[in-house]
Amino acid sequence: MATPSAVKPFVEVLSGHRQAVPPLWMMRQAGRYLPEYREVRARAGSFLDLCYNPELAAEVTLQPIRRFAFDAAIIFSDILVLPHALGRSVRFEVGEGPRLDPLDSPDKVATLSRHADFAMLEPVFEALRRVRRELAPTVALIGFCGAPWTVATYMVAGQGTPDQAPARLMAYRHPDAFARIIDTLVENSITYLLGQLAAGADVLQLFDTWAGVLPPREFLRWSAEPTRRIVEGVRAKVPNAKIIGFPRGAAALLPDYITRTGVDAVSIDWTAAPTLIREQVQTRVAVQGNLDPLALIAGGAALDAAVDDVLANFAAGRLIFNLGHGIQPDTPIAHVERMVARVRSYRG
Amino acid sequence: MATPSAVKPFVEVLSGHRQAVPPLWMMRQAGRYLPEYREVRARAGSFLDLCYNPELAAEVTLQPIRRFAFDAAIIFSDILVLPHALGRSVRFEVGEGPRLDPLDSPDKVATLSRHADFAMLEPVFEALRRVRRELAPTVALIGFCGAPWTVATYMVAGQGTPDQAPARLMAYRHPDAFARIIDTLVENSITYLLGQLAAGADVLQLFDTWAGVLPPREFLRWSAEPTRRIVEGVRAKVPNAKIIGFPRGAAALLPDYITRTGVDAVSIDWTAAPTLIREQVQTRVAVQGNLDPLALIAGGAALDAAVDDVLANFAAGRLIFNLGHGIQPDTPIAHVERMVARVRSYRG
Repeated sequence: MATPSAVKPFVEVLSGHRQAVPPLWMMRQAGRYLPEYREVRARAGSFLDLCYNPELAAEVTLQPIRRFAFDAAIIFSDILVLPHALGRSVRFEVGEGPRLDPLDSPDKVATLSRHADFAMLEPVFEALRRVRRELAPTVALIGFCGAPWTVATYMVAGQGTPDQAPARLMAYRHPDAFARIIDTLVENSITYLLGQLAAGADVLQLFDTWAGVLPPREFLRWSAEPTRRIVEGVRAKVPNAKIIGFPRGAAALLPDYITRTGVDAVSIDWTAAPTLIREQVQTRVAVQGNLDPLALIAGGAALDAAVDDVLANFAAGRLIFNLGHGIQPDTPIAHVERMVARVRSYRG
Repeated sequence: MATPSAVKPFVEVLSGHRQAVPPLWMMRQAGRYLPEYREVRARAGSFLDLCYNPELAAEVTLQPIRRFAFDAAIIFSDILVLPHALGRSVRFEVGEGPRLDPLDSPDKVATLSRHADFAMLEPVFEALRRVRRELAPTVALIGFCGAPWTVATYMVAGQGTPDQAPARLMAYRHPDAFARIIDTLVENSITYLLGQLAAGADVLQLFDTWAGVLPPREFLRWSAEPTRRIVEGVRAKVPNAKIIGFPRGAAALLPDYITRTGVDAVSIDWTAAPTLIREQVQTRVAVQGNLDPLALIAGGAALDAAVDDVLANFAAGRLIFNLGHGIQPDTPIAHVERMVARVRSYRG
């Protein structure tokens, strides 16, 4: 049975204690590369139906843990459930990305609700409780939300775009209106994340997928600062809350991001420069990453070399082994097994 | 009349001499945001017809110089004329990006010609000669080609993709075949660039638009190393050739890139971290950049602040003022004028 005092290697790393074998999980590990996921997905209805079905969301969350014995489960959900709970229309159409009604003018922003309907998100909390009951006590459970900047880029544009120009343009042209979107997301993200902690999450991750398209001034204002407010808001209620930031593409701005936000760890993408990360990041926080998801698709010698690079670059310090971005649907399961075995055979 | 000995502020910066007012030009300055360009474009036929028409290519190259008195003209052309001269099918369809026949298997790569048909590129050389005759002696003329990695990504995928996964996968799965593409591009780029110098180019720029999607090991192998070979090959014939590298998104790998390649300057995108650039890049080479093209679209106070940021960050050292990427078609000309005036009023 799970006991609160069981040691979770994943949480240990976040708490300052390097593990000889790096704890391991994969972003988007509950996903289409798994036949058992596709089977559940096919009978769930829409993608959002699956997110809001506690039984099935818990089931797909647990599938990769059963198969690969990862050190952490991440609750199956999506960063766009929060704008959905804020009353925005959110749809996932097959073969396309998400679609929202664009919030692309100050007039529209003025109509944005300040408070999410958290009853809509109760199924996420319930799924977390179910997963926590099923998980071994040594396995961590990760809750998450999108960082405000990234969620705002989808809310403004209504979809993903090559470099999220619509949100960047609104932030330049109408900074007050854009700040209202960000403020609303900050406040509701705090409530949402506290709910996830209460439901059993051990750790929280803030996904800022689009942080890397911002110039430094805008990065600090729209990515780092709102993240800081969320970290502070969560810790005002749960002082020892463990929080991972993932400002993808932040590159040489990562040291500033850490200083500003107070996160316990950063997730780094596969392009991160090892020397900078070791000298200016890993000396201060834990690092999570950063295998190229395409090396995992390629497999073979390329995969081995890429796994070894991650270990050689970062395993001497506090490392959580992960990918640099989500696993892709066309990834062979045998390659995941090969990666897992190679990481687990590491003795540093 | 132009004389070879006239001082070109742009070339001075590359030669080690900071200018009190930073020389100024814009990537894609000959382009659709200009009505006079659209007029020529409409009667040129296809995009490639315009590239291969010396009279019209020279005309559109000169248009932004007449309008804004920029310190450098860049020959109107495209990075895909080299694969075209290598016998690959290249088409530019309206409203889409370029389309090539994908070179997506080792068998196909084995059929790739080793030598470009430089007679096809003679119109580019002729356009350079025409522009050089028309340019004031203080204005520099820039020749260019794509860096091998970026050109290869289009040759393999047959088009632009969100992160050029097809080329990255081929490089993992079939490194020998991929190296053959790169080697072919290195050799022919050297010949092509030497031809541009002979035709009147003062400076060469290597565009590596997709450098930023590569992990560090692959970045050094497929972006920096081929660039080094081109720099070395060009300088074997023209020892003092001035070369600017633009490994977009290279971020914290830029110091390594400079060390490996021997370029005289790097162009930096709008996300570059100022401290790293000042301390580890601008101390060694000139820096070109890096206004966010969206700030130029936005105009007003946001544009002024963004211009001032570039100047505050980099104008104390050797700076060529530019955008962080090409100017976008929907940019108001009045915003360009505002930017030019603000840069030219700088006294540092």
